[in-house]
Amino acid sequence: MTKRSVSAYSWVPPFAQGLVRDLRVRWALEEAGFDYEVKVMAHPDRLNPEYVAKQPFAQVPIYEEGDLVLFESGAIVLHLAQQSTALAPADAAGQARVSAWIFAALNSIEVSISTLADLDLFFSEESWAQQQRPIAENAVRERLQQLTDALGKRDYLLDQFTAADLMMVCVLRILRHTDLVAEFPTLAAYQQRAEARPAFKRALAAQMETFAANEPAA
Amino acid sequence: MTKRSVSAYSWVPPFAQGLVRDLRVRWALEEAGFDYEVKVMAHPDRLNPEYVAKQPFAQVPIYEEGDLVLFESGAIVLHLAQQSTALAPADAAGQARVSAWIFAALNSIEVSISTLADLDLFFSEESWAQQQRPIAENAVRERLQQLTDALGKRDYLLDQFTAADLMMVCVLRILRHTDLVAEFPTLAAYQQRAEARPAFKRALAAQMETFAANEPAA
Repeated sequence: MTKRSVSAYSWVPPFAQGLVRDLRVRWALEEAGFDYEVKVMAHPDRLNPEYVAKQPFAQVPIYEEGDLVLFESGAIVLHLAQQSTALAPADAAGQARVSAWIFAALNSIEVSISTLADLDLFFSEESWAQQQRPIAENAVRERLQQLTDALGKRDYLLDQFTAADLMMVCVLRILRHTDLVAEFPTLAAYQQRAEARPAFKRALAAQMETFAANEPAA
Repeated sequence: MTKRSVSAYSWVPPFAQGLVRDLRVRWALEEAGFDYEVKVMAHPDRLNPEYVAKQPFAQVPIYEEGDLVLFESGAIVLHLAQQSTALAPADAAGQARVSAWIFAALNSIEVSISTLADLDLFFSEESWAQQQRPIAENAVRERLQQLTDALGKRDYLLDQFTAADLMMVCVLRILRHTDLVAEFPTLAAYQQRAEARPAFKRALAAQMETFAANEPAA
């Protein structure tokens, strides 16, 4: 059987817990029903030369599958989607649609969400960040409206749950410190629907369990 | 023969000329040697319902190939890379490496570059943007250093030119209004090497030619 593993941090501060990107890969592996090992490491170990040789940006996750070493959660999830009909339709057109939506989540949506989250999580005391915030917030709203329109009355982006929904919902989760998703009831319901999936719950619980077990002494 | 087409704007202001994302797809098509049609449209037409039905974020490019309609330049270029050894090695491991680096260009690198470019191109008169700029610039520098280290002494990200280089160089081009790439001679040489390719020159010339032909009267 193919041996699979994903790298993860032993602990991160609460603002990042439940968002770290190994969650995306764990969720995909759980949906696909693939066995995998989690390689837990201390946060500073991401800077070790042997880790950087596999992940040039010193981040999690790295995914290993036999001899294959992959980085970038988008590439990993897309790779898994090529292996399981739980993650994408098997036909070429369906695969291409899933790929388009994964890229949309990471490049058309996450860019604006990431700008807003950086302001709120790292610079909220700075007056320049407070001045920029309404602009950043409106940029996010524009994208959320477009996503709402694209989703329409469907439960998921394609006719079935796919890796694209998994990625999109993980990107929407970055907004959890705001009420922005709640402003778009279609998206709030979409996120709730996806997060109710047993595979998501298992993936999230496993990430959180490791953080709880490695909580630094106060 | 498969009929291929890509959407493009008839004109955009100079700050965007040579950056609009149909360039990425044109370049990939030129490298692969595929015939294609360019579907030129006025910028406001991106908001037409029939266009948005194909491109939910009202942007270029849309790529059509027979019955397949794709959006997101990353997904399109990756799709083309699966069809031509001019864009990626044919083996699964090579394809996965190209995919990882395309995602890296769009999610690990472009996010910081896009933050900086927005400040410079849209908000340069605002005092909050001037205060944020050094922070945004250093975030870009950190990524460019990591990319420099990953590239090392190689000419391209993999052992041959691939779609990953094409995407990475198109992302670096967004920094053309700064001296940041020049601070990293390895990257400056890398960009120059890729932009010297005849396929890039043809793609850029074609985009610019359309803009020149549709220049609004002063």
